[in-house]
Amino acid sequence: MIGRQRVIIENVKPEINHGQFPIKRVVGDHVIVSADIFSDSHDVISAELVYKHLSATAWTHVEPDHLVNDHWEGSFITQKKGIYFYTIQAWVDRFKTWHRDMLKKIDAEVDYTVDLLEGAEIIQRAMDEHTDMERQDKNYLDDAKTVLRSDAALEERINPITTGELFDVMTSYPVRSHLTRYKNELTIMVERKKAGYSTWYELFPRSTASEPGMHGTLRTTAEKLPYVAEMGFDVLYLPPIHPIGNAHRKGKNNTVTCEPGDPGSPWAIGSQEGGHKAIHPELGNFDDFDFLLKEAEKHNIEVALDIAFQCSPDHPYVKEHPGWFRERPDGSIQYAENPPKKYQDIYPFDFETKDAEGMWEELKSIFIFWIEKGVSIFRVDNPHTKSMRFWGWVITEIKRDYPDTIFLSEAFTRPKVMYQLAKQGFTQSYTYFTWRNTKYELTKYFEELTQTEAVEFFRPNAWPNTPDILPEFLQVSGRSGYIIRNVLAATLCASYGIYGPAFELMDNVPKTPGSEEYLNSEKYEIKDWNINDSKSLKPVISRINQIRNTNKALHSNYSLTFHTIHNENMICYSKHTPDFSNIVLVVVNLDPYHTHHGWVDLNLDALEMDTEHSFQVHDMLGGAYFLWHGAHNYVELNPGIMPAHIFILRRKVRTERDFDYYM
Amino acid sequence: MIGRQRVIIENVKPEINHGQFPIKRVVGDHVIVSADIFSDSHDVISAELVYKHLSATAWTHVEPDHLVNDHWEGSFITQKKGIYFYTIQAWVDRFKTWHRDMLKKIDAEVDYTVDLLEGAEIIQRAMDEHTDMERQDKNYLDDAKTVLRSDAALEERINPITTGELFDVMTSYPVRSHLTRYKNELTIMVERKKAGYSTWYELFPRSTASEPGMHGTLRTTAEKLPYVAEMGFDVLYLPPIHPIGNAHRKGKNNTVTCEPGDPGSPWAIGSQEGGHKAIHPELGNFDDFDFLLKEAEKHNIEVALDIAFQCSPDHPYVKEHPGWFRERPDGSIQYAENPPKKYQDIYPFDFETKDAEGMWEELKSIFIFWIEKGVSIFRVDNPHTKSMRFWGWVITEIKRDYPDTIFLSEAFTRPKVMYQLAKQGFTQSYTYFTWRNTKYELTKYFEELTQTEAVEFFRPNAWPNTPDILPEFLQVSGRSGYIIRNVLAATLCASYGIYGPAFELMDNVPKTPGSEEYLNSEKYEIKDWNINDSKSLKPVISRINQIRNTNKALHSNYSLTFHTIHNENMICYSKHTPDFSNIVLVVVNLDPYHTHHGWVDLNLDALEMDTEHSFQVHDMLGGAYFLWHGAHNYVELNPGIMPAHIFILRRKVRTERDFDYYM
Repeated sequence: MIGRQRVIIENVKPEINHGQFPIKRVVGDHVIVSADIFSDSHDVISAELVYKHLSATAWTHVEPDHLVNDHWEGSFITQKKGIYFYTIQAWVDRFKTWHRDMLKKIDAEVDYTVDLLEGAEIIQRAMDEHTDMERQDKNYLDDAKTVLRSDAALEERINPITTGELFDVMTSYPVRSHLTRYKNELTIMVERKKAGYSTWYELFPRSTASEPGMHGTLRTTAEKLPYVAEMGFDVLYLPPIHPIGNAHRKGKNNTVTCEPGDPGSPWAIGSQEGGHKAIHPELGNFDDFDFLLKEAEKHNIEVALDIAFQCSPDHPYVKEHPGWFRERPDGSIQYAENPPKKYQDIYPFDFETKDAEGMWEELKSIFIFWIEKGVSIFRVDNPHTKSMRFWGWVITEIKRDYPDTIFLSEAFTRPKVMYQLAKQGFTQSYTYFTWRNTKYELTKYFEELTQTEAVEFFRPNAWPNTPDILPEFLQVSGRSGYIIRNVLAATLCASYGIYGPAFELMDNVPKTPGSEEYLNSEKYEIKDWNINDSKSLKPVISRINQIRNTNKALHSNYSLTFHTIHNENMICYSKHTPDFSNIVLVVVNLDPYHTHHGWVDLNLDALEMDTEHSFQVHDMLGGAYFLWHGAHNYVELNPGIMPAHIFILRRKVRTERDFDYYM
Repeated sequence: MIGRQRVIIENVKPEINHGQFPIKRVVGDHVIVSADIFSDSHDVISAELVYKHLSATAWTHVEPDHLVNDHWEGSFITQKKGIYFYTIQAWVDRFKTWHRDMLKKIDAEVDYTVDLLEGAEIIQRAMDEHTDMERQDKNYLDDAKTVLRSDAALEERINPITTGELFDVMTSYPVRSHLTRYKNELTIMVERKKAGYSTWYELFPRSTASEPGMHGTLRTTAEKLPYVAEMGFDVLYLPPIHPIGNAHRKGKNNTVTCEPGDPGSPWAIGSQEGGHKAIHPELGNFDDFDFLLKEAEKHNIEVALDIAFQCSPDHPYVKEHPGWFRERPDGSIQYAENPPKKYQDIYPFDFETKDAEGMWEELKSIFIFWIEKGVSIFRVDNPHTKSMRFWGWVITEIKRDYPDTIFLSEAFTRPKVMYQLAKQGFTQSYTYFTWRNTKYELTKYFEELTQTEAVEFFRPNAWPNTPDILPEFLQVSGRSGYIIRNVLAATLCASYGIYGPAFELMDNVPKTPGSEEYLNSEKYEIKDWNINDSKSLKPVISRINQIRNTNKALHSNYSLTFHTIHNENMICYSKHTPDFSNIVLVVVNLDPYHTHHGWVDLNLDALEMDTEHSFQVHDMLGGAYFLWHGAHNYVELNPGIMPAHIFILRRKVRTERDFDYYM
């Protein structure tokens, strides 16, 4: 294509899959955009990072900095929820080129009389373009033109140039000749704060009855809210609360035969009593649900529902929409299987159904149903067994009308599938944290999550345990092990959660040796938890979550920095706010059995800390204060007492110069 | 968008700027394409790498391999010149999923009678889709269907599955249900072999006269062809042969005042005698030019012309198209400048001219003019001072009609600009080789050129010297230094060139100490070269180029591998053909003054060499044979004798087992 544009813009970042997917931010976050920008020849280029909220009519312009090697970088802060657009534009700047060359020529004392006349022409061009110019700028430029063209002494004629005044005025009125605009308008999904920072507690409502053997209800669940709030959690996540199927219902410990009274798995959704838009009768009714939500709100807790798109054979959909399931040659419906294993109690939806439209719309209506009942957070069960494109569609549809909705992807699957789900729109995602225990594993994984493109779209939510997973480490590491995993999850990840009360009561018995399933799993039976047990980790968890709430450094993951510590059993990392007003440094002894000590080598540059002065570190977990100096400092942790320090770093330490009489 | 496609394809490589630019290949090259391919759930995926030549009606399908972590890779070989397209498609394969699950179920001895019926349905589906099936396959599948559905013993019914026969037939007839095709059709520019492998000799025609002081002509240039051919060069590149301007003509050593008889710079193009489509009268006429081309062809040499898009003030364009240049307020035309330096003898084209269309078409017509005179290779002067998009347009236009045309980009500028010119279509590019001397510099630079995405679009052409550049190293390193630089250029780069006879006669005097310009530069005066000087490097250069011509390993850069050598003054690297039938190993002593020795640690895996047996290395430069064993071998190089080995590795060494009476 023949044309006059001379600037090339490429390598724009962040850009996910050529701009197909948005990057994610919460309100108040920084967005840093970089690009390679250059043209032929040696002219000066002007570039602009432009952005706008979907609702805005005009673009906001930010001048990026030319860093090095034709690489430019600019940034802005997101102000409100919803979709933002951003891109880069640039042009060969006639004025700036002229100004730079004039200064060189003046310096070299070569003849530049014609150049002065050119300058006047360039000014006139800007005035023609910007007819709405400020009056005083217009007057200044009129005068500058006259001076440049005058017969006065050269010294006087070049005055607007050498003083820099002309430059200051003219750069407010760019003439974007032959503008190149990057071909993609990239998008940002800006969400409420909780999308980026949240603290989850998972609990089975049916295990909340006040008397052993009773079936808990939504109302007895509400009675646990003060307990959950005291520990500092702000999301109460409930496994499915829908009617549980009777056909092929599983018994205790996932047995195929079910004894009378066995409650079944909440994930076997649907019975004669209804499906995904009904409540299991033993848990209560919609009034009870509303009561629970209102009570939770009083404790600043949001209730998150589990959405598991699968049906028990009793689910009303099976009769109403047989085409949404795969029919077998014998007329039966294909149940879930992972050959040779069979899950006859679960019918998966067939995402190759001819009625994709009908099925997708109905599944979407399930979210809408609960949103209209007051729910804004969904934990989505096994999203990786449903069409990726379905998630992209349904999340986009819902967030357009209900931007506060949060979707947590419960996918423990292959790396690229997990990332794809996040790209398609999941707000947060389960992670491999559950199985990352050593310093090497944790460092490598969290560097991947926070220092690669993944940080733009994948928001990790770390879980030390879930009803499905009692990790080997927790089975054998005792109280210190639980604290280690709690501190790591809570400080490595701005969002984390625990499955309780199994966690704080340190239930650590696997179904069989070598298994990571709980013995007598709560998935298949009602449990009676003694939450008042004196050995409960409640006080420690409360302290950890309080530290999170009062330290903004822990509310995002962008700043995560690992520091060297000379002991393979110890890990050290920090997080800080963008302005460094809050710096948290964590040191964990990863060995739950033995005391370890080591020398930390802090990366003080990353913390913008001064190597000259001493600084105070205050262990918010243990309460102790230490005075440190420079990068090299000693740490010792006895896991029997406390396996971690969560330090707050205070850069200013008083010296004799602060003493009143010093001067 | 609601739909039934379940497969995701992303991270397709190679893909330059989201597919905006083609990758480059020559006929017979491999193209390796990789992508991340996955779907929801655990179904088996089938993927295809599809490609076609622009002229083909049908796509060719290649089955890529699933390597690891959802990453797939396939390859094909380019068969003919011109544009190829390639992309990836994939789908959830119902048959393969069923077949895999059947094998698991058979193994676990669970009930699978309904599954057998499903298999028959899947076969029927394939038969419905492929009505043009081979008769014998149709018969086989009809039988298989019947067997699967029969009442026979299970053992018999599963026979088509367990024998693998059904699998073999069915995978020839894929049913591409709900196919996902990668959104971009990517392109390859496939060129003739010389685009990838060429050996250049630059010479000023006016310095070829047989008597000192005379002006050489195109006919005296033709007399030098045997000399150039004996040295093994296959491209003879001539600086501009157009009329040289008189206005502001430069004198000897680039002085502003020109003495009578000074010939001027050939790059000051255009005079009353014509412009870019004319020949400087003192060089001859179009008959002479035709004679030179025909003579060159006899020596298997192609003549490359210099195309410098700039005009002397006398160029006819200046009067005919004043709008193509920038007019100044005093009515004069803007000459080239790099303030405070002024080049009054050069008018640059203004790529922001309103007549972009007229100017671009005329510049294109210059190439066409010379192509129709028989020229297929152009060395383009300073392309980085002309609009990038112009190059993309003009090269695409020309290569569509004249696919054999080769464009060499003479841009010594910033990295991203050099890469951009190559992306826009330049066949080959000048490099920073001229200033890369140490082992670290050479390794780092050539790893960037051959082991990053750059290898897909940037074909380096290495020049140890040019009329503009006498590098510091050559000024001080003597004969060994010239050989070092020649060996490096000729073996690191499949294309390289020298500016002669300055190179082989080792002209090493700079204009001033610290300068990299030649004293008495041939750019501004006629030189009288004694090419028969007994000290000439002609024999060594001839040998080096002969080694290049007879070793296909040196005809491309994809295989370049650096090997460890335990001496910082020595460098070791290899190249091989894709089938390893030709392996060349180069060792260079980078210090021109002192003998160095060191132990080489060969990367035998990269060479697919067996560590068990000894192998022969034959120094094609020095003639010696050595018997090596394993990775660790000793090398010593005295630069006074020869600063380099260019070994051919022969994997098979005779042993006692080859001796007739051994058995």
